[in-house]
Amino acid sequence: MPEKIRVAILGASGYTARELLLLLLRHPHVEIAAVTTRQEGKEGTPLVSELHPSLYGRLAIRCEPLDAEELARRGVRCVFACLPHGVSMEIVPALLRLGLRVIDLSADYRLRDPQIYQEWYGEPHHDPDHLRLAVYGLPEIYGPQIREALLVANPGCYPQTVILGLAPLIAHDWIEREDIIADSKSGVSGAGRAPRQHTHFPECNESVAAYSVGKHRHTPEMEQVLSDVASAPVRIIFTPHLVPMDRGIFSTIYVRPRRAVSEAELFELYRDYYARAPFVRIVPHLPNSKDTTGTNFCDITLRLVRDRIVVLACEDNLIRGASGVAVQNFNLMFGFEETTALL
Amino acid sequence: MPEKIRVAILGASGYTARELLLLLLRHPHVEIAAVTTRQEGKEGTPLVSELHPSLYGRLAIRCEPLDAEELARRGVRCVFACLPHGVSMEIVPALLRLGLRVIDLSADYRLRDPQIYQEWYGEPHHDPDHLRLAVYGLPEIYGPQIREALLVANPGCYPQTVILGLAPLIAHDWIEREDIIADSKSGVSGAGRAPRQHTHFPECNESVAAYSVGKHRHTPEMEQVLSDVASAPVRIIFTPHLVPMDRGIFSTIYVRPRRAVSEAELFELYRDYYARAPFVRIVPHLPNSKDTTGTNFCDITLRLVRDRIVVLACEDNLIRGASGVAVQNFNLMFGFEETTALL
Amino acid sequence: MPEKIRVAILGASGYTARELLLLLLRHPHVEIAAVTTRQEGKEGTPLVSELHPSLYGRLAIRCEPLDAEELARRGVRCVFACLPHGVSMEIVPALLRLGLRVIDLSADYRLRDPQIYQEWYGEPHHDPDHLRLAVYGLPEIYGPQIREALLVANPGCYPQTVILGLAPLIAHDWIEREDIIADSKSGVSGAGRAPRQHTHFPECNESVAAYSVGKHRHTPEMEQVLSDVASAPVRIIFTPHLVPMDRGIFSTIYVRPRRAVSEAELFELYRDYYARAPFVRIVPHLPNSKDTTGTNFCDITLRLVRDRIVVLACEDNLIRGASGVAVQNFNLMFGFEETTALL
Amino acid sequence: MPEKIRVAILGASGYTARELLLLLLRHPHVEIAAVTTRQEGKEGTPLVSELHPSLYGRLAIRCEPLDAEELARRGVRCVFACLPHGVSMEIVPALLRLGLRVIDLSADYRLRDPQIYQEWYGEPHHDPDHLRLAVYGLPEIYGPQIREALLVANPGCYPQTVILGLAPLIAHDWIEREDIIADSKSGVSGAGRAPRQHTHFPECNESVAAYSVGKHRHTPEMEQVLSDVASAPVRIIFTPHLVPMDRGIFSTIYVRPRRAVSEAELFELYRDYYARAPFVRIVPHLPNSKDTTGTNFCDITLRLVRDRIVVLACEDNLIRGASGVAVQNFNLMFGFEETTALL
Repeated sequence: MPEKIRVAILGASGYTARELLLLLLRHPHVEIAAVTTRQEGKEGTPLVSELHPSLYGRLAIRCEPLDAEELARRGVRCVFACLPHGVSMEIVPALLRLGLRVIDLSADYRLRDPQIYQEWYGEPHHDPDHLRLAVYGLPEIYGPQIREALLVANPGCYPQTVILGLAPLIAHDWIEREDIIADSKSGVSGAGRAPRQHTHFPECNESVAAYSVGKHRHTPEMEQVLSDVASAPVRIIFTPHLVPMDRGIFSTIYVRPRRAVSEAELFELYRDYYARAPFVRIVPHLPNSKDTTGTNFCDITLRLVRDRIVVLACEDNLIRGASGVAVQNFNLMFGFEETTALL
Repeated sequence: MPEKIRVAILGASGYTARELLLLLLRHPHVEIAAVTTRQEGKEGTPLVSELHPSLYGRLAIRCEPLDAEELARRGVRCVFACLPHGVSMEIVPALLRLGLRVIDLSADYRLRDPQIYQEWYGEPHHDPDHLRLAVYGLPEIYGPQIREALLVANPGCYPQTVILGLAPLIAHDWIEREDIIADSKSGVSGAGRAPRQHTHFPECNESVAAYSVGKHRHTPEMEQVLSDVASAPVRIIFTPHLVPMDRGIFSTIYVRPRRAVSEAELFELYRDYYARAPFVRIVPHLPNSKDTTGTNFCDITLRLVRDRIVVLACEDNLIRGASGVAVQNFNLMFGFEETTALL
Repeated sequence: MPEKIRVAILGASGYTARELLLLLLRHPHVEIAAVTTRQEGKEGTPLVSELHPSLYGRLAIRCEPLDAEELARRGVRCVFACLPHGVSMEIVPALLRLGLRVIDLSADYRLRDPQIYQEWYGEPHHDPDHLRLAVYGLPEIYGPQIREALLVANPGCYPQTVILGLAPLIAHDWIEREDIIADSKSGVSGAGRAPRQHTHFPECNESVAAYSVGKHRHTPEMEQVLSDVASAPVRIIFTPHLVPMDRGIFSTIYVRPRRAVSEAELFELYRDYYARAPFVRIVPHLPNSKDTTGTNFCDITLRLVRDRIVVLACEDNLIRGASGVAVQNFNLMFGFEETTALL
Repeated sequence: MPEKIRVAILGASGYTARELLLLLLRHPHVEIAAVTTRQEGKEGTPLVSELHPSLYGRLAIRCEPLDAEELARRGVRCVFACLPHGVSMEIVPALLRLGLRVIDLSADYRLRDPQIYQEWYGEPHHDPDHLRLAVYGLPEIYGPQIREALLVANPGCYPQTVILGLAPLIAHDWIEREDIIADSKSGVSGAGRAPRQHTHFPECNESVAAYSVGKHRHTPEMEQVLSDVASAPVRIIFTPHLVPMDRGIFSTIYVRPRRAVSEAELFELYRDYYARAPFVRIVPHLPNSKDTTGTNFCDITLRLVRDRIVVLACEDNLIRGASGVAVQNFNLMFGFEETTALL
């Protein structure tokens, strides 16, 4: 039996940390050695179960303040950073320096070009040196690099549906690369756990709305990866929408084929492309986002509508879109079966 | 004070009938003379409040079986038909023959060409003669004709957001007429009141999904009206989605301008076009479908994203999308203030 | 035609203010003369429609800071105070001094005894003098006093279902007054509009929970009014629950009859007691809270279960539970038909 | 390593079957040998993934018609019957005769007395002989008997919260046994998967309501088990409510102590009583039903309110309330660790 890998989770209070903990509790080769938070109550840092009552009785660990050297001393080999963007890049360098491998769930290391980071995130990047080191953590595209990576930039929730939904068409040059429209719908947990006006229940319940139209930060992430796949520039018009449900992303993607194709050809292309991807399901039916809830699957189907191909892709934004793919990346990095703790 | 117009509602059991009754109870110039249903309990036809407990104590009327001559005899001058498509066209001819004016909330008289009806609805049209008589009941486009109409084909819920969202651009020939993508999201009441598997609460709650991709029957309706506005063919790729909420439609529409335009020009165009339309609000902010819930408003805004114009339009699918616009049509037909009972 | 009464709404940003504005816009005898808020943007106080996009195009008023003398100068005769508890009692005295009549939607003037206020609200009452002046604004119980009142303490949302649900039994001394259990379920808008952790969508959606068990501040309010009705002490065990919906309260009340009664007798008792109450519906069926959504109705039914009477009462917490009953009180205070603007 | 037990699931189309399959797919000692359904499509019985798209790619089994002898022939040792009540008792006798052990998720074998079955279910019991054989499948109460059982009557969803919530108090005779009120709130999946009017999304969404007041069939089940625990009659007034969420039950239980007790004593009593129960969590905080979603936990807390003890208990109605406890029973019956596949 393989040894247990000691891991730490940084930034315990959010939803991605909770989902990670739930998944890692099922992982036979993981020991949760530390959980950190910046929050302090009057009795010091909280118990994990005080932050997440669903974990009551399951993980009797008290959170601690982040101390990179202490983590190293305790034999932690992998750190999952569930920190806000901007905070990760302040902390990751020290972790790497100590020889810890890092899976960063923030956006800080996803964009290769610090200029583009600054353009979309509105502030300069503070750790450009490590950008070259970082591997974008989408196993279906960058699997071999992830196995060797010291720093994995765990992908955004929206981008995974759009990238997985388009990669086969882009890789085979079947579509116009600059005439792509991705219209995505997300549950509210995608906005994080901090209460805000627009995620207050009576504001967003019983309502649907677009937000960040033309400005969402996941746009350059999609374009970077798909341009890698194409070895040529890809441009996307991306519109996210907020839907009154806890979790789930459904992306409807409209592309223009460069030559006539049949639906049968499309399904064959996709089934081939993802033949060895255990978490991408090419389904014949129109999927519901709910079919993937609580799982690491991305369900994809395809339809021809007039002169367009419509790609429909969905996932659980907290599992596949964040914590599940993080565990998938962990499995690759440490040589475990890709699906461990994920089925 | 104008006389009270006696009206009848056919097909009492659905949501559009309930909403109509609630609106008409507030209308100072309407008398609800009859409500019909094909449903029978053991004690005969039900009370309206047995079908709709929300109307308990508000409308002490027993439903009756439909008898066109009896309606005429009682002095009914306007009939709101809330019947399924296919049923309306069996009944409307008799009503017209007796001199009653009809507002038909079904799809039966919306498409001018019976061939197109057959193509999308899968059965031949049984009353092609009256198709020419029918006026499409979208007041912002066909207001003058509605005033004189004997038969109004009340518009579909999705088409109103797409047509109102595009009419100014189409009318002024600012966009490519055959490169239009409309991605719409609807609450579940749009599926009607009859229980079905996919609208069973635990199936559609906490989920979002596309349906009828490339095949939705509202597509030809949008194209017919916008082709009227353009005096040239318009083609639309339309994808409806089901969202876990009671009511509301949000349409995100992607079009390609024929020449460079600014957002300021777009807003000016829309504000001019709808200057006299009391129920179209051109708003500067990104609207939520909830802003229109319970109202007859359609809220529209516009954004430029790269080389596209993105039009965002929303409404309450049961009010603006059905029963509210029916009352708006009624007001025009009988010479009342357009907003009566609707504010 | 009666003159228009000029009114002001204090505290514009919350849900009760929005609902009030929507109702008052329909009131033929009201002129909204001022709307106040303490909020300030960079361009000064906001437009009402900036606080409430649903009011865009319907009320082109800019909020203003509260200035009691200015309100009096403008001829305002009635003030609706939608302020937090603790804030109302700082402002109401000045309004009364200027001769304005006040309908206070906060809890500040509901409890006659300042000691009980301090006990449940945790701070001393700052305006005990006006407590005697205040009339508890439940028209079905205190209608005659409300007509004359200078200061109406608009009732809490939960208490109305419990008080209306029990008043006939209490008034006729049919039940044990100290063996009452009220188990209430409320939609989330009852928690107000300020975002908090427990009302963040992904926290309260798909969940139900009790809160403030044994400590909810509406308990003494119910007991005070029912003790008035009984002319003897009444004690209630009250447990509120949060339910994932926007609006609606459903109270299930368990009481013990002092002698054997039949369901028929119970219905007769209730129908008699509320014979002249236009907004209390004694219904034979088991009601859904949704039957009352958007209305000022309280629906009540009764069942005998073993040795208990179970009273089931529901309402819309924002209309009947707050802004609707405020308008009902206004109508009584100013001599209008009780149902004006409410049907 | 223990051998794999071959199991069959009868009645594949519902929610409990789907949840069972998801749990059993994680069970290291189970082989799913057969899944049956009475449904037939045009190509014969459906694939499991056609009934449950969430299982696409996870269980490539075609459903089959039920044939007890065929199950025995294939070496099935345990059958999970997810059939409607009334159907189970037609099929279970044959399974038992063939030596298969049965976990019946219907209500057919829960009530020991066939008269009481007839009284609450409105039809005579067809298999009274096996009622004596059946063990009520609540491991925390009947664990030793379950280990030996040939036929386990898997418990109802509501009863588990009420029984687990009261057992310590009843067992130690701390409360009045005939003055118990249980007010329960359930998500909609508890009503099963067949679409009905009252579970149609726009009917039950945004609403809460009581149903089956005084008549719910889970009442005698609670009373039977708690009377066992007490060795004396227990009587309960039980009111279930429907809440707009997929899953979750929250029961608020009001009981009267026979002598003064403190909250500390109550917590000690409960912690002792459930010291060896891995799926009952006695929590200090007020739990949310969501804390237990997707788990086999029942979370319980206690509060003193005036002269009553209020017990608050919640669970996931599909896991703890049905399929999870079924797997817990299976683990006991076949000698596996009680928590296998459930954490």
